[in-house]
Amino acid sequence: MEFLVRMENRLPPETPEDERAELKAGERARAAELRAEGVLKRLWRVPGRNATVGLYEAADPARLHEALMSLPMAPWLDITVEPLATHPQEAG
Amino acid sequence: MEFLVRMENRLPPETPEDERAELKAGERARAAELRAEGVLKRLWRVPGRNATVGLYEAADPARLHEALMSLPMAPWLDITVEPLATHPQEAG
Amino acid sequence: MEFLVRMENRLPPETPEDERAELKAGERARAAELRAEGVLKRLWRVPGRNATVGLYEAADPARLHEALMSLPMAPWLDITVEPLATHPQEAG
Amino acid sequence: MEFLVRMENRLPPETPEDERAELKAGERARAAELRAEGVLKRLWRVPGRNATVGLYEAADPARLHEALMSLPMAPWLDITVEPLATHPQEAG
Amino acid sequence: MEFLVRMENRLPPETPEDERAELKAGERARAAELRAEGVLKRLWRVPGRNATVGLYEAADPARLHEALMSLPMAPWLDITVEPLATHPQEAG
Amino acid sequence: MEFLVRMENRLPPETPEDERAELKAGERARAAELRAEGVLKRLWRVPGRNATVGLYEAADPARLHEALMSLPMAPWLDITVEPLATHPQEAG
Amino acid sequence: MEFLVRMENRLPPETPEDERAELKAGERARAAELRAEGVLKRLWRVPGRNATVGLYEAADPARLHEALMSLPMAPWLDITVEPLATHPQEAG
Amino acid sequence: MEFLVRMENRLPPETPEDERAELKAGERARAAELRAEGVLKRLWRVPGRNATVGLYEAADPARLHEALMSLPMAPWLDITVEPLATHPQEAG
Amino acid sequence: MEFLVRMENRLPPETPEDERAELKAGERARAAELRAEGVLKRLWRVPGRNATVGLYEAADPARLHEALMSLPMAPWLDITVEPLATHPQEAG
Amino acid sequence: MEFLVRMENRLPPETPEDERAELKAGERARAAELRAEGVLKRLWRVPGRNATVGLYEAADPARLHEALMSLPMAPWLDITVEPLATHPQEAG
Repeated sequence: MEFLVRMENRLPPETPEDERAELKAGERARAAELRAEGVLKRLWRVPGRNATVGLYEAADPARLHEALMSLPMAPWLDITVEPLATHPQEAG
Repeated sequence: MEFLVRMENRLPPETPEDERAELKAGERARAAELRAEGVLKRLWRVPGRNATVGLYEAADPARLHEALMSLPMAPWLDITVEPLATHPQEAG
Repeated sequence: MEFLVRMENRLPPETPEDERAELKAGERARAAELRAEGVLKRLWRVPGRNATVGLYEAADPARLHEALMSLPMAPWLDITVEPLATHPQEAG
Repeated sequence: MEFLVRMENRLPPETPEDERAELKAGERARAAELRAEGVLKRLWRVPGRNATVGLYEAADPARLHEALMSLPMAPWLDITVEPLATHPQEAG
Repeated sequence: MEFLVRMENRLPPETPEDERAELKAGERARAAELRAEGVLKRLWRVPGRNATVGLYEAADPARLHEALMSLPMAPWLDITVEPLATHPQEAG
Repeated sequence: MEFLVRMENRLPPETPEDERAELKAGERARAAELRAEGVLKRLWRVPGRNATVGLYEAADPARLHEALMSLPMAPWLDITVEPLATHPQEAG
Repeated sequence: MEFLVRMENRLPPETPEDERAELKAGERARAAELRAEGVLKRLWRVPGRNATVGLYEAADPARLHEALMSLPMAPWLDITVEPLATHPQEAG
Repeated sequence: MEFLVRMENRLPPETPEDERAELKAGERARAAELRAEGVLKRLWRVPGRNATVGLYEAADPARLHEALMSLPMAPWLDITVEPLATHPQEAG
Repeated sequence: MEFLVRMENRLPPETPEDERAELKAGERARAAELRAEGVLKRLWRVPGRNATVGLYEAADPARLHEALMSLPMAPWLDITVEPLATHPQEAG
Repeated sequence: MEFLVRMENRLPPETPEDERAELKAGERARAAELRAEGVLKRLWRVPGRNATVGLYEAADPARLHEALMSLPMAPWLDITVEPLATHPQEAG
């Protein structure tokens, strides 16, 4: 099933640059894995914010939760999840 | 998967009593079927309101949507759905 | 550019069934055209609600506005539009 | 009587790992006791968040308050409590 | 247990005066009974509004719900209920 | 005149235990004085929160403000005050 | 004591012109009386809205409530009242 | 001085087409006059909504209020006004 | 023109007493000057809060902004400004 | 396309004066460049706040995002972006 996932990144602006760079690199790497696994299907930036909107797919909310918590930036992310139902118009 | 479902009933107070009674009877009957099918697992009243909080289970959000829309009162219900993830403490 | 579009359908529950059916048929037909034109890219139902979340693409907000207003149901839709920026991870 | 209890965990991400681990272990242990006492009846994770939704039972709000405050994580939890009324449909 | 109950009266201003007067008289009579039964302990007006704040006591939320729904004005009342816990300072 | 007063205690969880204990003791002592003076009439806990709802009486808002600010915990309290009007039903 | 009073006028736009004119004339007349009595001290328009912000003075909230309810437009007004405390800077 | 003005058009969808057309024509005509007078400086559509954001200029809020109320659609417009201060960067 | 100005003081409770006293003294002195200049016309305390509501007058929003920013406490104030339009009832 | 951009500056009041001055100078310089490039078209201050409302133009949201993130103050800015559609009235 698909989920719309909104992430606001609350990493403090005072975070040292190298720590931030390491977190970002880890974030990109883990996101790439989630894409490869088919969990992360689309990702957009919310213009003007350190925030994203993403389209995710997972077997259930518990599996989605694990995927999101596996992101290195997770402790600083304010995440909201909205379940999406397939629209009949999209069926075959 | 389980969902927390909140329903606010917006049926206008001016609705004729027999129409209201018929809707309520239909609602009870359909809710009983959803219980029998294991879709409606628990139901509570929000004290002071014509509203309920319910614990539902469905294979996915699309199936949940169909179940909720099958309620005769659906056109007057303001429904919000929250996906729930099994907590590891509850596992086996 | 892409937009996340949320539509809450406020058509009154008291609307006669044939009027509702005609509006829905017109809605489906126009949505199909918008899909064919590449304006409507994905559409989901918000479970429990007469509402959708959609991914749209248009040259600019004015063009998006025209597309949305061309839906027969438009006078009853409460629509909110969120602009999306391509995420660098998605490039190439 | 039953209560729907929502907990947002505000423990700062900068908390040292061992302090966090100790708090979590204490939390699990105390939650197990509350389950054994019949106070904590169900617990879910809010997907994407360090948050839970739980179904609790207590003789009255004061007793519920004591149970919630007995959690080692309590000083960092933002808790909201909603009283639930048994729905007539659920009566025998 | 005690509850703080807020009621906003949504009776349309266009309601005929006699219907309104009858509802109000019934409301006063039923409120007097609830006072006599110890369910309604204090009642205040929210200045400037057709609204009240009240202190109620009931064995549980279900009993409170029944009491509130027994008010003739109930179909037009937007009611919110907040459970209150006895404060240790108030004990004996 | 009476006021409904809501207090959310924002004292940081990291506050040293002895400082917290001293503040709490001072709070209890000052509250007892306000009770004796007839300013604090009832006090409840908001279950699950470090928060209270109280019924206060004071000659006017300025006098109420002074009473509230005299609490040792005042600098950490987020307080909201709602004026209450005597309901005609309560008049002799 | 003084109160800041916000009034949003919800009289439906479809109200016949003569009924509206009569209500407005009555409103002006009653407002003039409240000014003469010292209850209404200042009145402003919220630009762009059929709404006002006013500075009122009354012995207590119950007296203020009576004054506000005496306005012919009262059944259509959505009123919020905020108590104001004299600031020490303004003393003597 | 300049103001940011947001208008949500609440004209009911059930309004007869000729009445709506007449209102719209009057609206366009009056807006053209306000442009000619330098009151309306820029106007945008909020995509997906029957709503606008506009940049207005008027000597003071009372004059702005008169200009906005002179629009034939005014009784159905939900208008919010935000005062803007010239930014020093724009000087000279 | 007149403005309704709301100020919430966010000075941290941990601020050393002498720093706080100095800021408050500077605040009182500057407020007295703004009164003498006719910019600050009335000032009230919001009961229970470290907050004020004030009636200000300035030639335009830019001038008001300068006046507010000249307060020594300004960096810690969360200020909201509402433009007020003279009500026709108040015109001589 | 044009965007309405709201920026709340969250730079802590405790920031050393020289660091703040350097950030402000850099901000002015970069804003001047964005003006020269036609990205920043108008800028206003929100009276009473360390905040601005601006009218920006960019080819798409991604380009706007880059421009906003290029501001030296960006890590401390809470930015919201609203897409604007050209209004037919403005068309030549």
